[in-house]
Amino acid sequence: MLFMLRIDVTLPPEMAQAEKDRLRERENARALELIGEGVLLRIWRIVGRVANFSLWEAPTLEALHDKIGSMPMFPYMKIDVTPLINHPVTEAADARNGRPPRR
Amino acid sequence: MLFMLRIDVTLPPEMAQAEKDRLRERENARALELIGEGVLLRIWRIVGRVANFSLWEAPTLEALHDKIGSMPMFPYMKIDVTPLINHPVTEAADARNGRPPRR
Amino acid sequence: MLFMLRIDVTLPPEMAQAEKDRLRERENARALELIGEGVLLRIWRIVGRVANFSLWEAPTLEALHDKIGSMPMFPYMKIDVTPLINHPVTEAADARNGRPPRR
Amino acid sequence: MLFMLRIDVTLPPEMAQAEKDRLRERENARALELIGEGVLLRIWRIVGRVANFSLWEAPTLEALHDKIGSMPMFPYMKIDVTPLINHPVTEAADARNGRPPRR
Amino acid sequence: MLFMLRIDVTLPPEMAQAEKDRLRERENARALELIGEGVLLRIWRIVGRVANFSLWEAPTLEALHDKIGSMPMFPYMKIDVTPLINHPVTEAADARNGRPPRR
Amino acid sequence: MLFMLRIDVTLPPEMAQAEKDRLRERENARALELIGEGVLLRIWRIVGRVANFSLWEAPTLEALHDKIGSMPMFPYMKIDVTPLINHPVTEAADARNGRPPRR
Amino acid sequence: MLFMLRIDVTLPPEMAQAEKDRLRERENARALELIGEGVLLRIWRIVGRVANFSLWEAPTLEALHDKIGSMPMFPYMKIDVTPLINHPVTEAADARNGRPPRR
Amino acid sequence: MLFMLRIDVTLPPEMAQAEKDRLRERENARALELIGEGVLLRIWRIVGRVANFSLWEAPTLEALHDKIGSMPMFPYMKIDVTPLINHPVTEAADARNGRPPRR
Amino acid sequence: MLFMLRIDVTLPPEMAQAEKDRLRERENARALELIGEGVLLRIWRIVGRVANFSLWEAPTLEALHDKIGSMPMFPYMKIDVTPLINHPVTEAADARNGRPPRR
Amino acid sequence: MLFMLRIDVTLPPEMAQAEKDRLRERENARALELIGEGVLLRIWRIVGRVANFSLWEAPTLEALHDKIGSMPMFPYMKIDVTPLINHPVTEAADARNGRPPRR
Repeated sequence: MLFMLRIDVTLPPEMAQAEKDRLRERENARALELIGEGVLLRIWRIVGRVANFSLWEAPTLEALHDKIGSMPMFPYMKIDVTPLINHPVTEAADARNGRPPRR
Repeated sequence: MLFMLRIDVTLPPEMAQAEKDRLRERENARALELIGEGVLLRIWRIVGRVANFSLWEAPTLEALHDKIGSMPMFPYMKIDVTPLINHPVTEAADARNGRPPRR
Repeated sequence: MLFMLRIDVTLPPEMAQAEKDRLRERENARALELIGEGVLLRIWRIVGRVANFSLWEAPTLEALHDKIGSMPMFPYMKIDVTPLINHPVTEAADARNGRPPRR
Repeated sequence: MLFMLRIDVTLPPEMAQAEKDRLRERENARALELIGEGVLLRIWRIVGRVANFSLWEAPTLEALHDKIGSMPMFPYMKIDVTPLINHPVTEAADARNGRPPRR
Repeated sequence: MLFMLRIDVTLPPEMAQAEKDRLRERENARALELIGEGVLLRIWRIVGRVANFSLWEAPTLEALHDKIGSMPMFPYMKIDVTPLINHPVTEAADARNGRPPRR
Repeated sequence: MLFMLRIDVTLPPEMAQAEKDRLRERENARALELIGEGVLLRIWRIVGRVANFSLWEAPTLEALHDKIGSMPMFPYMKIDVTPLINHPVTEAADARNGRPPRR
Repeated sequence: MLFMLRIDVTLPPEMAQAEKDRLRERENARALELIGEGVLLRIWRIVGRVANFSLWEAPTLEALHDKIGSMPMFPYMKIDVTPLINHPVTEAADARNGRPPRR
Repeated sequence: MLFMLRIDVTLPPEMAQAEKDRLRERENARALELIGEGVLLRIWRIVGRVANFSLWEAPTLEALHDKIGSMPMFPYMKIDVTPLINHPVTEAADARNGRPPRR
Repeated sequence: MLFMLRIDVTLPPEMAQAEKDRLRERENARALELIGEGVLLRIWRIVGRVANFSLWEAPTLEALHDKIGSMPMFPYMKIDVTPLINHPVTEAADARNGRPPRR
Repeated sequence: MLFMLRIDVTLPPEMAQAEKDRLRERENARALELIGEGVLLRIWRIVGRVANFSLWEAPTLEALHDKIGSMPMFPYMKIDVTPLINHPVTEAADARNGRPPRR
């Protein structure tokens, strides 16, 4: 099952830069783990904002919820979760090109 | 250059079903062409709505604008265009796995 | 997988009453089928509006999308789909009472 | 009388984790009591957010107001209360299946 | 049980004046009946708009829903229903003045 | 002149409970005075929120503004003021029943 | 009593120009009458829109409501009514300059 | 050139009353100066809120911007600036009455 | 005086293509005239929408209002007008480069 | 590639004036550098607000993102990025006047 997430991050202005850096580092490490687990497929940064779109795949909603909540920056995130299905047009294009279905 | 589009389609209720079908057919054919040109990378349907997210790649903003406007259902679409850049975390994951950078 | 839907229905004012009645009848018949299939679990009417909350269960997002789109009033609906998981508190209560997990 | 509640919880970022844990524990204990009293029927977590839908039953609006206000996290909640009635379709399905009317 | 309704009426501009007048007449007659039944307690017009606040009393949510839906202008109304309870301050004032509790 | 007020109260989370209680007590005492003066006619609590609807009567807008501003919780209130006039239907009902016009 | 109105006018696109002109003419004639009656004090057009701010004075809310409703374009208007009182600073300035209080 | 400003003031709840009073005093003194300069024509308080409408006249946009920014409460204000022109109807009324054009 | 306009155009779906083309042609011809008059400085199309930002210069608000209203597509436009002043940084850059102040 | 940015700045009220001044100074110095690099083309202040429109040119989205993020006030900014293309009408006007295409 695929889901598109739109995440906007707001760190409190009073947080020290060192703490922000540490948080960012932990966030990126965790994201790499989630990619390794095949749960987080891709992230795209939104230009000019501290925000991103990301594509997730999860076998159950419980798994998706747990993985989202495991991100160290979760308490600072506003998250919109949109359930997705593949569009017949991209599926047709993959089939025509002999490509395995992509995410 | 990558762009995420969120498209919501609203066909007028008084449009005849046959005209809707013809429009849908032309829309899908045009989408396949745009995929063939490498401009439209993927489309995901949003569950429970006549709406989708899609990922586009274009060398110039003029090209992007022209391709979006060439969709037969364009007059019935509400479109949000978000410029994107790759996130360092997915780039790192691709590099680690020896994968070519994906879209 | 569970999903909460909030559906608001807007029939065009120029639609004849007989057509509205026929549409409503087909809508209710289809809803009964969806209940029979175990996809639509419950519907609650929102007091004072032509709107409702409904609880759905589906094995895949594709199945959910297809079932939602099969409702005869779909073209007149504004639909919000929210993915849900059971809350540990209601699960604990079911367990304590020796009840099978409810929906 | 049935009511659907949509609750979004926002804990202040400066609250210590231990205090958050204690508050969460008291919240869950109170929720179990409300289930035991038959006031709170079910809770569903909204995937990817600290938010939930919940179904309540109360004999009076005064009772409903008191029970909602008794939740330890009430001061941190944004709550929407929607009065509900059963939909004829789910009532028909229950009757046909010889099931007692469910909530 | 008390409920505050905020109703905004929008008649289609193409409706003939005679039809509007007939509709208005039926609406007022029905409102008088609802007052006679003790369901509709008071209506206040909002200055400068075709809109009103109204106070309703109903023994059940089903009764309230049916009565609201029985208004001839219902298809042209946008309605917000807010469940109410008496405030202790107005109750205290009534008690102090030896007045029966008012609505 | 009649006015409907919708008031939403937000006390800062860091305010001590004792201060909240004292403020609430002063607020209720002031509300009772305003009822005694015939300016505040009724208050209804909105179920599940720290919010209310209230009906006010004032001979001038200056008087209304002063009375609203005299509430101890005023700095913590978001207030919407809607000017009202009696609806002909409730006036007709009062006349028919030989009741003095109510507020 | 003073009131600020913000009025946005939307004429249906299918209305013939001659009808629009006749409506505009009647609207302006009625506005002149309202100025003559001292109810409508001033109108200011909002640059780049078919919209305006206007200042009204009325002895009662009933009178204000009737006068607003008497405008020929009323069915095509979206109107916000804001009750006003004079600010002590402009009153002080008028007093200091020996000017009669202005509107 | 005329401009309508809608200003909403929000003072931080933690600001001491004495500081609020001093700020208010400075604000009123500055407003009187702006009236004396003919830049600020009138202010009307919005009933039941810490907000106002005000009418400004300035020869240039630079002058308007500087004068608005010179208000001591500027950092606590949310300001909407709407450019205005006189409406032909009030101009006609002034001409008919032999009044000099008013603001 | 400078103004930024954000214009969104919505042509009615039932308008014939030939009429749309004629309207577009007249719109562009008028825009060229406005550029020739020095009122309309530049237009930028917004990618993926029938919308644009445009920079206008006008000696008076009356002139600006008239010019905006003279566009053939005006009845189909939603327009936001924002008064602008030059930013000291771009003025400094122009001065440093010996450039005449640009628009 | 051209982009319009709408930036709203909100400095925390508790920040000392000296720190605000230092931040503003650094912001302006950085803006001058960005103009020197040809990335930031122009800035226009929005009258009556701490906000501006600005026109940017960048060869890639990555470059644009980096340059926006390099502004010292970035953490205090709410930014909307709109991709733009030149409008054929201003291009035609430039061509007719023998002007090089402007930004």
